[in-house]
Amino acid sequence: MKPLKIVTLGGGSGYTPELIDGFIKRHAELPVSEFWLVDIETGREKLEIVGQLAQRMVKKSGIPMTVHLSTDRQLALKDADFVTTQIRVGQLAARIQDEKIPLRYGVLGQETTGPGGFMKAQRTIPVLLEICKEMETLCPDAWLINFTNPAGIVTEAIEKHSKIKSLGICSGANSMMMDIAKTYGVGREAIDARIMGLNHLIFADRITLHGKDITADFIEKLAQGASDNKLKNIPDVGLPPEFIRALNVYPLSYLKYFYLNREMVEHELEELNQGGTRGERSLQIEKALFEIYRNPELCEKPPELSNRGGAYYSDTACSIISALYNNKKEVHVVNTANRGTTPDLPDDAVIETNALIDKQGARPLAYGRLPARIRGLVQSVKAFEELTIEAAMTGNKHTALLALAAHPLVPSVAVAENILKEYLAANRDFLPQYTLAMDE
Amino acid sequence: MKPLKIVTLGGGSGYTPELIDGFIKRHAELPVSEFWLVDIETGREKLEIVGQLAQRMVKKSGIPMTVHLSTDRQLALKDADFVTTQIRVGQLAARIQDEKIPLRYGVLGQETTGPGGFMKAQRTIPVLLEICKEMETLCPDAWLINFTNPAGIVTEAIEKHSKIKSLGICSGANSMMMDIAKTYGVGREAIDARIMGLNHLIFADRITLHGKDITADFIEKLAQGASDNKLKNIPDVGLPPEFIRALNVYPLSYLKYFYLNREMVEHELEELNQGGTRGERSLQIEKALFEIYRNPELCEKPPELSNRGGAYYSDTACSIISALYNNKKEVHVVNTANRGTTPDLPDDAVIETNALIDKQGARPLAYGRLPARIRGLVQSVKAFEELTIEAAMTGNKHTALLALAAHPLVPSVAVAENILKEYLAANRDFLPQYTLAMDE
Amino acid sequence: MKPLKIVTLGGGSGYTPELIDGFIKRHAELPVSEFWLVDIETGREKLEIVGQLAQRMVKKSGIPMTVHLSTDRQLALKDADFVTTQIRVGQLAARIQDEKIPLRYGVLGQETTGPGGFMKAQRTIPVLLEICKEMETLCPDAWLINFTNPAGIVTEAIEKHSKIKSLGICSGANSMMMDIAKTYGVGREAIDARIMGLNHLIFADRITLHGKDITADFIEKLAQGASDNKLKNIPDVGLPPEFIRALNVYPLSYLKYFYLNREMVEHELEELNQGGTRGERSLQIEKALFEIYRNPELCEKPPELSNRGGAYYSDTACSIISALYNNKKEVHVVNTANRGTTPDLPDDAVIETNALIDKQGARPLAYGRLPARIRGLVQSVKAFEELTIEAAMTGNKHTALLALAAHPLVPSVAVAENILKEYLAANRDFLPQYTLAMDE
Amino acid sequence: MKPLKIVTLGGGSGYTPELIDGFIKRHAELPVSEFWLVDIETGREKLEIVGQLAQRMVKKSGIPMTVHLSTDRQLALKDADFVTTQIRVGQLAARIQDEKIPLRYGVLGQETTGPGGFMKAQRTIPVLLEICKEMETLCPDAWLINFTNPAGIVTEAIEKHSKIKSLGICSGANSMMMDIAKTYGVGREAIDARIMGLNHLIFADRITLHGKDITADFIEKLAQGASDNKLKNIPDVGLPPEFIRALNVYPLSYLKYFYLNREMVEHELEELNQGGTRGERSLQIEKALFEIYRNPELCEKPPELSNRGGAYYSDTACSIISALYNNKKEVHVVNTANRGTTPDLPDDAVIETNALIDKQGARPLAYGRLPARIRGLVQSVKAFEELTIEAAMTGNKHTALLALAAHPLVPSVAVAENILKEYLAANRDFLPQYTLAMDE
Repeated sequence: MKPLKIVTLGGGSGYTPELIDGFIKRHAELPVSEFWLVDIETGREKLEIVGQLAQRMVKKSGIPMTVHLSTDRQLALKDADFVTTQIRVGQLAARIQDEKIPLRYGVLGQETTGPGGFMKAQRTIPVLLEICKEMETLCPDAWLINFTNPAGIVTEAIEKHSKIKSLGICSGANSMMMDIAKTYGVGREAIDARIMGLNHLIFADRITLHGKDITADFIEKLAQGASDNKLKNIPDVGLPPEFIRALNVYPLSYLKYFYLNREMVEHELEELNQGGTRGERSLQIEKALFEIYRNPELCEKPPELSNRGGAYYSDTACSIISALYNNKKEVHVVNTANRGTTPDLPDDAVIETNALIDKQGARPLAYGRLPARIRGLVQSVKAFEELTIEAAMTGNKHTALLALAAHPLVPSVAVAENILKEYLAANRDFLPQYTLAMDE
Repeated sequence: MKPLKIVTLGGGSGYTPELIDGFIKRHAELPVSEFWLVDIETGREKLEIVGQLAQRMVKKSGIPMTVHLSTDRQLALKDADFVTTQIRVGQLAARIQDEKIPLRYGVLGQETTGPGGFMKAQRTIPVLLEICKEMETLCPDAWLINFTNPAGIVTEAIEKHSKIKSLGICSGANSMMMDIAKTYGVGREAIDARIMGLNHLIFADRITLHGKDITADFIEKLAQGASDNKLKNIPDVGLPPEFIRALNVYPLSYLKYFYLNREMVEHELEELNQGGTRGERSLQIEKALFEIYRNPELCEKPPELSNRGGAYYSDTACSIISALYNNKKEVHVVNTANRGTTPDLPDDAVIETNALIDKQGARPLAYGRLPARIRGLVQSVKAFEELTIEAAMTGNKHTALLALAAHPLVPSVAVAENILKEYLAANRDFLPQYTLAMDE
Repeated sequence: MKPLKIVTLGGGSGYTPELIDGFIKRHAELPVSEFWLVDIETGREKLEIVGQLAQRMVKKSGIPMTVHLSTDRQLALKDADFVTTQIRVGQLAARIQDEKIPLRYGVLGQETTGPGGFMKAQRTIPVLLEICKEMETLCPDAWLINFTNPAGIVTEAIEKHSKIKSLGICSGANSMMMDIAKTYGVGREAIDARIMGLNHLIFADRITLHGKDITADFIEKLAQGASDNKLKNIPDVGLPPEFIRALNVYPLSYLKYFYLNREMVEHELEELNQGGTRGERSLQIEKALFEIYRNPELCEKPPELSNRGGAYYSDTACSIISALYNNKKEVHVVNTANRGTTPDLPDDAVIETNALIDKQGARPLAYGRLPARIRGLVQSVKAFEELTIEAAMTGNKHTALLALAAHPLVPSVAVAENILKEYLAANRDFLPQYTLAMDE
Repeated sequence: MKPLKIVTLGGGSGYTPELIDGFIKRHAELPVSEFWLVDIETGREKLEIVGQLAQRMVKKSGIPMTVHLSTDRQLALKDADFVTTQIRVGQLAARIQDEKIPLRYGVLGQETTGPGGFMKAQRTIPVLLEICKEMETLCPDAWLINFTNPAGIVTEAIEKHSKIKSLGICSGANSMMMDIAKTYGVGREAIDARIMGLNHLIFADRITLHGKDITADFIEKLAQGASDNKLKNIPDVGLPPEFIRALNVYPLSYLKYFYLNREMVEHELEELNQGGTRGERSLQIEKALFEIYRNPELCEKPPELSNRGGAYYSDTACSIISALYNNKKEVHVVNTANRGTTPDLPDDAVIETNALIDKQGARPLAYGRLPARIRGLVQSVKAFEELTIEAAMTGNKHTALLALAAHPLVPSVAVAENILKEYLAANRDFLPQYTLAMDE
């Protein structure tokens, strides 16, 4: 079998040691010979810090894998087998603006949920589609494994506007399963569930322990607070027990942004006043992390890394890449096109759901109609996502306004207009499509 | 042709003179011989005041129509041809509670939009289904023409749980067309439009003047403020011009409760502090109206009636009844089951849209996919409506909580829980289904 | 209002006097000032014969309409308001081959049903799309009213591959209504029905007489032979009474080709041996007709014309054109895109059904799910039609073979292969797309 | 883990040794302790012959499994874990009539395809639903694994009219994979494909060898005759190579009954004249088999068994039961409800497709739209199946006539009427539902 070449765009990310660690552990089943970490010129310093750590980690492991550090994306993409992306256009500075601007209007300021997801998509989609275009020439058969947020939205943009095979990846479902496993004191592999929804908007039902349905029991435990999927990066505000019983499916923590919108916005405003937004704290954590990474003695993933809330990304990514590469016919939760899975969403909409993964890609498991209790929310966020993608592709300000106005957490179109105005001004450097559209 | 018998349930309503007036004018095409105004015992005084006015109006007109006043519903329903409903379970006092309770939590308090619509449906659906049951025995071929709000929700409940033929009627679309006609200085009949949505949540596009498409021109006029569909009962807060241009369809005024939710809630809170809720003002207007109606010299619809904001109800109702009775094959906007009109809503969902009306009933005009800009909102309100109906039928508190939580204007499930608790306590006398459900 | 210009392509058709007669009668509502009859060079003689008759008819009527005869299509199309087509690529000679070749294999040989419809579509679609292309330049807002068979298939090709507004027209539904009216001794306008299906494959139910449902009564009359929709051009073989009762909807006569395929093929083979195919007899009738038309004394539609079985075309066409022109909001049966009318067929499939016609075009009345008794047949013929259109657009022989093999009346793919081979050889002159495809 | 109890209804079938052999081999993963072979009184002799062979086979194997022989179905069903059915209501005598009656009219006479499938369903569905009713009381959590033909139709009847969990099983897909494997000289496990369709009407595409797509290569091999899925019980008539290339998916051999209907009917008529129908030959083979089974020395599955054409049933059944029991999350081809897998078939239609099997049952892999080349045929056979089930449930002769008339291989409704009349007369003893319906 030919040696494997993996390219990670946004290789200077602080998460990279997780990923490298995952590939080192799985070298037997994923015999990667070349690992390219690629970043843009302004990220070169971070790339070198984290890249050198990666090289030390590989060296210590003794496996025959070369880690290349590069800012020449096209050189890297040539003949790649898998391309993973974890880019952040505008870096954490842009995220912090994404958070702060809506908060000025009393609207949720979050990295991927609410207006923040819209703005991140506007910056990110043009870059990812440029990458796809290069891949169509340089590595047309490679898989694009997309970690970049908002993962569902950008995967849908790629599905609709590129021929490159891609999957959107998120650790959310995995973290829910881990949480269930912990509740029952069993290993992750003993737990399964049916997952349906959109990225950062998923619901689990038909929860099983060794194949036996324990949904009712787990929901009751959840209601009683015996279990709660507390993601590191989501404020710890609990859903009312009676609502959990009524809902009767297990929602990802991100759903709190919708179910407890008022409380979460208040919480964010408090945080802002006290220590700054999540993005600002991430910035501090990142700085600290890179200080640790600089240490030439460090040859493994440091424990501090898990504080950033992306602990399962590496496992999720490596196991899905392995399922693709090794034709494993395993079920994983991925972001992929609906194509009949549920008739309640458009056929070309990207959803996050259980899919069988083999060498040919992902085939979701048929789901049928969405229950009314989750249907309206999923459909309205999907309409927002569709408009967000259209705005990102065209740079049309009317479409952008419709997208923001369509988001269920934006309480007024007048507010949407104000946020949009501030967003476009603050992101001027990252929005070539809007400039082009205005020139026309 | 057999003489026509019409029964109006909630006949003691202040709107009744409008309806009587409409039937007097159309006697040539709708030869009603018996008109029964029916109300419940506690409404007897109002029934007599308004009923005697109706009798004076008919007498003055000289047409051969008898107006019967009765509190014996079953006697009235026997062999009816058309049954119209304009009932208000719990009367205006209940409406005022519907408005005030959500406002305590900073949530929209409105008769039909938001939590108020949920609560009104809980009180109304059991009564309407009881009426349908009686009709199945006493007048199984009669048409039920439903004015009672929330008109879309209750019509869907009837569609799903009764065999009685029914249509939900609202003057909203008519008022939009009148507004367009006024803008262009033409008669109402010169204007047409494609209407799609749910009751109090409709959008017009493909607007025509004598068959010529004027949508773009009208939308621009709307944006420039040259036209605005200012319903009497909706606060006069304007949509931002740029949003109107972006939306590019003409929304019913009620949409402001969604598009300007924050502003509308603030407005309502101000009103509450100054003069009381809309319901409280309606109560005053109604009292004044009934004083006028008492005047034994009055033999016609008084001008003060139009101040209540339901001016087009009579025209809408009479023309639709005439289209059914006279097999007219005219297009009217009604609330009726989707059945394929748009694949983006369930087949048994009631929608408000253009439909061909003839003796066989209503057949909507096929619409196809909803554009993303309106799709998410329509779908999420429909999910709320579906849960609202299920709650009203079962009295299940979990379903009731899910319904309120699913409404896009409710900012938190914790708030939903509080509103529900207060609502159920305040409406104890009108919710037999919840009592039954708790006894089980 | 601007004077109306109508262009009829295939103006040399023997049916033209019907059409002219219709426009003369309706001149008050359709004030046509220019009527262009256009044909190709090889049809010039017939064009002149029939065109001069048309000119005499108009002259006699005294209305201010000029009839132009031309072989310059582009000159004619310039600024047209309505373009009607009644073209026959390859003329009756091609039709006769369409009939005879399948019969050699014991397969139905019919103008529009079965392999004949496939072959006619292959010849016709390229020509019609060329016409549409010219219209996009010369009269982009004109309506294309398509009489040309197979009317459903070619209208779908236009819908999918052109921006020109078009409707497919057939007199079939009208003839069914006339038949019902005759059965009840009432005028055509007293009868209505719900029509669903594809061109030459429609079913009527919800049949009404002055709005009252008489379906059960009429079906029983049909079963007892008291009524039968005997189209002039369909052999008179009766459906078994018990099958009519079981079917419980009223099928167009063409359905006999499916329901009595074996008997109809035998009948055709007998006819072939005795007097030749329908096409051959049409040729004789046409010759006789044109002899009559030549008579310079003749100034009106001769009675012999109705012998060709297209008696209601003119009424159907003129009334639909009038509904479009005069914004009539009338319901007519037309061939138009499904767009949600029934979820059991693709959204872009052209169906034949009741539609509201106004200046904006046709909006079908929503129908919902097809009953199983007709669903399978309609769906399988639609799949054949879809493949037929794809073959006609691409000239791909594999697709052509799949189309023929998909037709429910073709009993073997080996037979399909033979018919296709003979068809392509016999039609070489009319199939530029196949030649091009082979050159690639 | 509790000991496993398996019940096989129709245990006297000649196939039973295959099944027993399968369970013996898999005892490690499927620790069956009780195996009940159940048959009806008239099948007692065969039950004893084959049952005693089964007991000898188990004894020889040394595994701790008891084989019970019984005609007391309710005793057997009590607390069963898996119930498999391989019943044949009316035995081979009824099958022979199913074959011969249509052939008198020149119509395909086949066990499951065409009118034969209709008739078998009429006899079988009432018996299977009676079994399900008993299971609802005696073993409500057991899985019903249905081998009984027509497997798709009866599984749909169970899905629609019972709460028992069931899967329909057929070896067809497995035989296709084996055929592909043989063509490439690899093991069965190296091959995979996407399967879609109805039972005995499936198509394979996305064919892979160790995960690599080899569809184009295999189709070409098929066209060149290098491979052909020659099922033992299907006449060996080849599809034209050019049609195979055009179709571009791999059809199950049964598809020849549709694609080469004319040739297959001729072939059947020849066979009938020479040696009798397939059913008659099966009868002879069965007799011979049972002679062999009687041999008290025989302690294993005899080689003659594989001559009956059901070689892969045992593997298919055991591996699916094991996947259910052991929560394997493996993909198998089963008959199960569509529920969104493809929007081109009703949601409650049973389809045959790839599904993930675990303890919770089967979840099909989403497929999306059917390509036109197979869509029409699949949809029209599904409409036939739906009507067949409705007829079997109601005993309504009109519905039965519609079912037969809807079958694409029945060339005339007059023929359908005749076949139905003969069928009902010949099967009088097995059709209680028709007698009941006539009494009403």
